[in-house]
Amino acid sequence: MLFMSQPRKQAPPRRRRSKQSEWFTAPIKVGILPNLLGYNIRRAQIALWRDFSRTVGEGAFRPGMFSLLVLVDANPGIAQVDLARVLDQDKAAIVGLIDSLQRRRWLVRRKSSVDARRHGIFLTTAGKAGLEELRHEMLEHEQRFARLFSNDEMTALISLIRRIHP
Amino acid sequence: MLFMSQPRKQAPPRRRRSKQSEWFTAPIKVGILPNLLGYNIRRAQIALWRDFSRTVGEGAFRPGMFSLLVLVDANPGIAQVDLARVLDQDKAAIVGLIDSLQRRRWLVRRKSSVDARRHGIFLTTAGKAGLEELRHEMLEHEQRFARLFSNDEMTALISLIRRIHP
Repeated sequence: MLFMSQPRKQAPPRRRRSKQSEWFTAPIKVGILPNLLGYNIRRAQIALWRDFSRTVGEGAFRPGMFSLLVLVDANPGIAQVDLARVLDQDKAAIVGLIDSLQRRRWLVRRKSSVDARRHGIFLTTAGKAGLEELRHEMLEHEQRFARLFSNDEMTALISLIRRIHP
Repeated sequence: MLFMSQPRKQAPPRRRRSKQSEWFTAPIKVGILPNLLGYNIRRAQIALWRDFSRTVGEGAFRPGMFSLLVLVDANPGIAQVDLARVLDQDKAAIVGLIDSLQRRRWLVRRKSSVDARRHGIFLTTAGKAGLEELRHEMLEHEQRFARLFSNDEMTALISLIRRIHP
């Protein structure tokens, strides 16, 4: 069965050490952790985040900022409340991201021409150029992980993960 | 093909609104995001974290604390450096978790009887009892997500995710 293949990696062989420190060097038992969905997703998230922060935007961007920029680029004038809903984050977190990107002059908030009480979010020219560069680095970052899977496996993986989030 | 099934969920139908606010209520375009592994893992992590913090340990625990407790339970006397390595976290993060669990009197650090320069981590009686309760809540939390998959799908999903993390 394609998806039931053995794990590719094996633990490196352990060197024998002196008896004195034996209880520190015995193989670590990991109990139920490797069978928990939450544990595995969190470990994958740590690995992805570490690579992202090393290689995308010179460590000055968080993954959530990239997602937000992509959404603003594809939906000029999008409202904060819609960004929060689509990204499944609370409004305070979204406001923090927008403030940070506005200080960097990548985004602006503009009043709606039809309803002055509402603000829409737009990319600036600098934001558009910056996003293009980030997008390039982001795709290279993704590619380093995509390489671990065949196309069919990647399609299956993403389709399964999508059931977890709204 | 089993794993290529269509997503189960569909966006709820949108109510028509007045023309005035149309550019705010148009369907949001999500661009490349749904095809990015990192985006999907992060969204899944947010959904899992939210359910965890609502249902496990009355919101007073983080998922990493649970993993650490499971490891200490299965490996009495484990060293901080081994916890950091197995959980793929830096030592400062692990020390923070241990300090917090020690203040709660769930863990103790004890000097090794064979090497006084090394400390081992042990669960207290309170820690053992507390972990049993957390483990129960954790399995219920996992079950709410496991329900989204057949057994074969869950095995495939976890096996694929494990390729991402070391």
